[in-house]
Amino acid sequence: MLGVGLIGYGYWGPNLARNFSLQPDCRLVSICELKPDRSELAARTYPAVKTTSDYHDLLKDEDIHAVLIATPVSTHFELARDAILAGKDVLVEKPLTRTLAEAIDLNRLAEEQGRILAVDHTFLYTGAVQKIKEIIEARELGQILYIDSVRINLGLFQPDVNVIYDLAPHDLSIVCHLIPQDPVSVRAMGVCHTNIGVENMAYLHLDYADGLIAHFHFSWLSPVKIRRTIIGGTNKMIVYDDLEATEKVKIYDKGIVVRDGDVNAIYKARVDYRTGDMVAPKLAHREALNTEANHFLSCLKTRTRPIADGWAGLRVMRILEAGHLSIKKNGTQIRLEEL
Amino acid sequence: MLGVGLIGYGYWGPNLARNFSLQPDCRLVSICELKPDRSELAARTYPAVKTTSDYHDLLKDEDIHAVLIATPVSTHFELARDAILAGKDVLVEKPLTRTLAEAIDLNRLAEEQGRILAVDHTFLYTGAVQKIKEIIEARELGQILYIDSVRINLGLFQPDVNVIYDLAPHDLSIVCHLIPQDPVSVRAMGVCHTNIGVENMAYLHLDYADGLIAHFHFSWLSPVKIRRTIIGGTNKMIVYDDLEATEKVKIYDKGIVVRDGDVNAIYKARVDYRTGDMVAPKLAHREALNTEANHFLSCLKTRTRPIADGWAGLRVMRILEAGHLSIKKNGTQIRLEEL
Amino acid sequence: MLGVGLIGYGYWGPNLARNFSLQPDCRLVSICELKPDRSELAARTYPAVKTTSDYHDLLKDEDIHAVLIATPVSTHFELARDAILAGKDVLVEKPLTRTLAEAIDLNRLAEEQGRILAVDHTFLYTGAVQKIKEIIEARELGQILYIDSVRINLGLFQPDVNVIYDLAPHDLSIVCHLIPQDPVSVRAMGVCHTNIGVENMAYLHLDYADGLIAHFHFSWLSPVKIRRTIIGGTNKMIVYDDLEATEKVKIYDKGIVVRDGDVNAIYKARVDYRTGDMVAPKLAHREALNTEANHFLSCLKTRTRPIADGWAGLRVMRILEAGHLSIKKNGTQIRLEEL
Amino acid sequence: MLGVGLIGYGYWGPNLARNFSLQPDCRLVSICELKPDRSELAARTYPAVKTTSDYHDLLKDEDIHAVLIATPVSTHFELARDAILAGKDVLVEKPLTRTLAEAIDLNRLAEEQGRILAVDHTFLYTGAVQKIKEIIEARELGQILYIDSVRINLGLFQPDVNVIYDLAPHDLSIVCHLIPQDPVSVRAMGVCHTNIGVENMAYLHLDYADGLIAHFHFSWLSPVKIRRTIIGGTNKMIVYDDLEATEKVKIYDKGIVVRDGDVNAIYKARVDYRTGDMVAPKLAHREALNTEANHFLSCLKTRTRPIADGWAGLRVMRILEAGHLSIKKNGTQIRLEEL
Repeated sequence: MLGVGLIGYGYWGPNLARNFSLQPDCRLVSICELKPDRSELAARTYPAVKTTSDYHDLLKDEDIHAVLIATPVSTHFELARDAILAGKDVLVEKPLTRTLAEAIDLNRLAEEQGRILAVDHTFLYTGAVQKIKEIIEARELGQILYIDSVRINLGLFQPDVNVIYDLAPHDLSIVCHLIPQDPVSVRAMGVCHTNIGVENMAYLHLDYADGLIAHFHFSWLSPVKIRRTIIGGTNKMIVYDDLEATEKVKIYDKGIVVRDGDVNAIYKARVDYRTGDMVAPKLAHREALNTEANHFLSCLKTRTRPIADGWAGLRVMRILEAGHLSIKKNGTQIRLEEL
Repeated sequence: MLGVGLIGYGYWGPNLARNFSLQPDCRLVSICELKPDRSELAARTYPAVKTTSDYHDLLKDEDIHAVLIATPVSTHFELARDAILAGKDVLVEKPLTRTLAEAIDLNRLAEEQGRILAVDHTFLYTGAVQKIKEIIEARELGQILYIDSVRINLGLFQPDVNVIYDLAPHDLSIVCHLIPQDPVSVRAMGVCHTNIGVENMAYLHLDYADGLIAHFHFSWLSPVKIRRTIIGGTNKMIVYDDLEATEKVKIYDKGIVVRDGDVNAIYKARVDYRTGDMVAPKLAHREALNTEANHFLSCLKTRTRPIADGWAGLRVMRILEAGHLSIKKNGTQIRLEEL
Repeated sequence: MLGVGLIGYGYWGPNLARNFSLQPDCRLVSICELKPDRSELAARTYPAVKTTSDYHDLLKDEDIHAVLIATPVSTHFELARDAILAGKDVLVEKPLTRTLAEAIDLNRLAEEQGRILAVDHTFLYTGAVQKIKEIIEARELGQILYIDSVRINLGLFQPDVNVIYDLAPHDLSIVCHLIPQDPVSVRAMGVCHTNIGVENMAYLHLDYADGLIAHFHFSWLSPVKIRRTIIGGTNKMIVYDDLEATEKVKIYDKGIVVRDGDVNAIYKARVDYRTGDMVAPKLAHREALNTEANHFLSCLKTRTRPIADGWAGLRVMRILEAGHLSIKKNGTQIRLEEL
Repeated sequence: MLGVGLIGYGYWGPNLARNFSLQPDCRLVSICELKPDRSELAARTYPAVKTTSDYHDLLKDEDIHAVLIATPVSTHFELARDAILAGKDVLVEKPLTRTLAEAIDLNRLAEEQGRILAVDHTFLYTGAVQKIKEIIEARELGQILYIDSVRINLGLFQPDVNVIYDLAPHDLSIVCHLIPQDPVSVRAMGVCHTNIGVENMAYLHLDYADGLIAHFHFSWLSPVKIRRTIIGGTNKMIVYDDLEATEKVKIYDKGIVVRDGDVNAIYKARVDYRTGDMVAPKLAHREALNTEANHFLSCLKTRTRPIADGWAGLRVMRILEAGHLSIKKNGTQIRLEEL
């Protein structure tokens, strides 16, 4: 029986509490929350679980093997560091930390202390992303040429982070999961339409060494909600629409054929397109966070790295930080190796 | 009765021939086409119309008041110039010319010669764009904050122009029509995935003096066809989806409300979103090219400037040329005043 | 402070428990459930609420003013009757009873005893149905000519009720709410594709005295999920698509115009269609069951009839019973007055 | 070189003219049309083709081997009969004739005279229906349990035929093509909402000997356009949506599994649903009428029966006539053998 403690019972914490409660061989031991009304709600919902407003209580608790951190991002580093130093394994809400430097430090610390550091990249555990990963690993797409992603809606404006820090971790965690290498450079353009001083609309563009490009559109100011990623390969292409009820992933047997022949022929395309069947594969529809909790606990027992470990969180942080820098420099290309 | 002559009976020419034939008080007098099989098809389809392979025949023909040019873009300048010098009014297929310099020369020449120069920006004559123009002029949107447009499909690769020159004239003609001022700068990124050396996928980004941004995604290499433009204003927002059968234009009474108050309040959004009704207005569904032919002939009679005159064509050319330059310079921001 | 007791903590009971718990001035006092695991779940979720396996405990409890019944339909009559006789107000899951005769008896008993009898027609409390009701009462549609509704998916086969008893209460509760009069006759055709002996696919057809028709397609055996109702009026028409995320109700300013004139003209339609704007009005998006709980409690205090009272439940029962009879008689038309 | 003559150059005739003109080894010899303006249009469009207002000119013309009939349905029988008696093969617009009796006579006559009689069931030559036929013949669906089809929009009211005669031939030609046997009985309900006395909205229901049912909804009075057919089999199911741009046919690997076991178990479904991949197969997208013209000419040369021969037209007529009779008898079940 593994014991877990949760820090933060605000927006996301209750989801972690619920899903870890449902795991066999796991017990939610304690919840730390500063706001009295939220703490009281936690106590009412989980009468058998202890509540506290001091996270040190969790760190001292010998029944707790792992700490789940679902607090504002500015507190992630300190809380995770203390938990690791107290000998706990840790799962941190995304983004992993506020800065890349913090992410690097945290990963080093976890390595030194032999603790498991995981980041809550929930999308990696959805049936949709699992299927896309499987298709890519089976090399069905051929060479991946581009990724184009749109994640926009009329969303709640955040006072302390811009739209990239709010929305991009979703897409970047997916892209980093699907594409083993990192981009070589990042460009971003962002606009702020209010007086609160954070960008509410942004475009992010990644260039990879092998020619792959990835482009993202993020917005809190769209009249319609769109969550759609296109992955274009030389053999096949995928459209992943997260708002589709059942057919979230569609695999198109479409592409182009470059014909050899007379390059000098005028007014004659040497490229034809080809089009075949489309398949929408059956997807697992277990709740992603349930799968993730199960995987995290399993890694705890076997002392293996989770799919979304601290380095996965760090890869995302590096791109976020480069994007942030590019926005401040009016879209200048930032090379990741410079960071 | 106005007489018109048509140069070019390839892909688009037949549409011009058909629509001008249908106009009252107008006669299609002559068609010039170099390829024998196309010329023969023209002759069979319009038995009463003369056909020739020498465009000078049209310029000398006193029954012809206006010349319609639907030939490859590299020939536009020379043909339009000769027609103007021969005293004809001219309608040129888009893009107006190959280069900005040609577009400037052509406009000057038409002014000097007192000839009407029009460019075939067909989309301006659709019921959808007419309605959007009307809404914007009624100031229903408030201040326009952004335009985001996606025009992608698995399209036929062009051997001689890249995807921007192929697809962007559609969107840019619309944006120039809706937004009176020009952008101050242009950025573009493009990728070529074949050996034919022209970009088949591109992102184009415009910055305007008042903070408006316009972003475009063009691609010949998408598994799905999308033709969707979002126009976000402070009061209302429009989604224009050209693939919708009837409800192409949707007007959303949605936006954000910036609340005054304690700017220092932590963890408390000072921006709320508001959401009201959506209206899909009835649109005129006359064929756009029919409306356009009618408008052009009417301008000929009254000697007034058409909606899509040579300067409209020039505005588009300037952005295209800046975008092309930006791609060659790896996305560097090009200021329009530098061109 | 009103006290409520809940009988049945299976599929729907938890929703009632949660929503009544959230009401101000209301206390969930006791839950009766026969299955030990469900009873235990109820106890864990609501530690302050009593649990029992004997519903008489609820009837004797003086802190309980109203009883909520969410048990299999075959038990509704007996439980509701006993609750009324014990002086409680009652809210019964739909369909109200197993038979029309039971529904009549139950309504009479409630009248005699001065108790409030309500049926859980949840859909009536959705923002969508509230808006449609409002539009119809404002007489925007003109005369209502037809209602056509499709409610199909690959649903869980029920062992004890057919697809009409399972799905039709939703649509019939809506139609009875929107249309004050009852149909004069009912026809239904049903098919059973399994060995369990209940129809899994059915068509139901209602004829009204004023010419209105209502047609329904119900199925548990469709590869796609559809929840769409069209309401056609002489002035306007509504499409209500419950699967749309936000634009569930669309009002079309469309219709036909019957032209006076030469009736004998041959090959000349004397009916034209007209088409105007479409509006998708903003809908309230409070959870329907929350609104319903609030309304039920308010009726308890003011001793007024709820929108979905026992007679509303009875109207639905009458059509269900006629439909059932028609299926058994191979689609024969059943006149409601015969029942 | 086969010569064809066309009678009728109204709504559909021009499509036949254009597609037969495009066939190799075929010549459009003559067009018969009564209205002067339409006749003149035909002459202008096809300068090399003779025009006449007397169809006997075509029957006497030795260069004409086959006659295409695209006139109002009331004239089909006489024109086709005379053409057959004049030794011509015949292609008749659908529905084949006005009555079943005429259809029977016409088929008998064609047999006696050794002439080919075809009916213009265009849908059978679409890529979508060809693919569905192929899937069914490969027995991929298992046993076909039901067909449910909706063909509604705000259509032009016809003065002389009701909505069933206008729209049902499309669906019935498809169903008769896919299902070799005929239904045993037909029921139909129709409503007329105008003073022109023909039904503008109807439901048609077919019962087959093996338990298959087919249900159709036709309407000229719907605010939205729907063209969707669901075909449910024991193994797989098809959704055919003719308004989809490319993915018109979707094959769902979905169905139910009837579990053996304790039939008496209470509250325990003995039927589970299963769900697998969805495939949208690539479809041929040649224009259907082009394929049909090619097939008809090929049958003429080889003297073989076309896919849509006179008997196919007759099968559709029998169901139409039964449906018409059922409407007149208020939905009474009409057995086909009674006709």
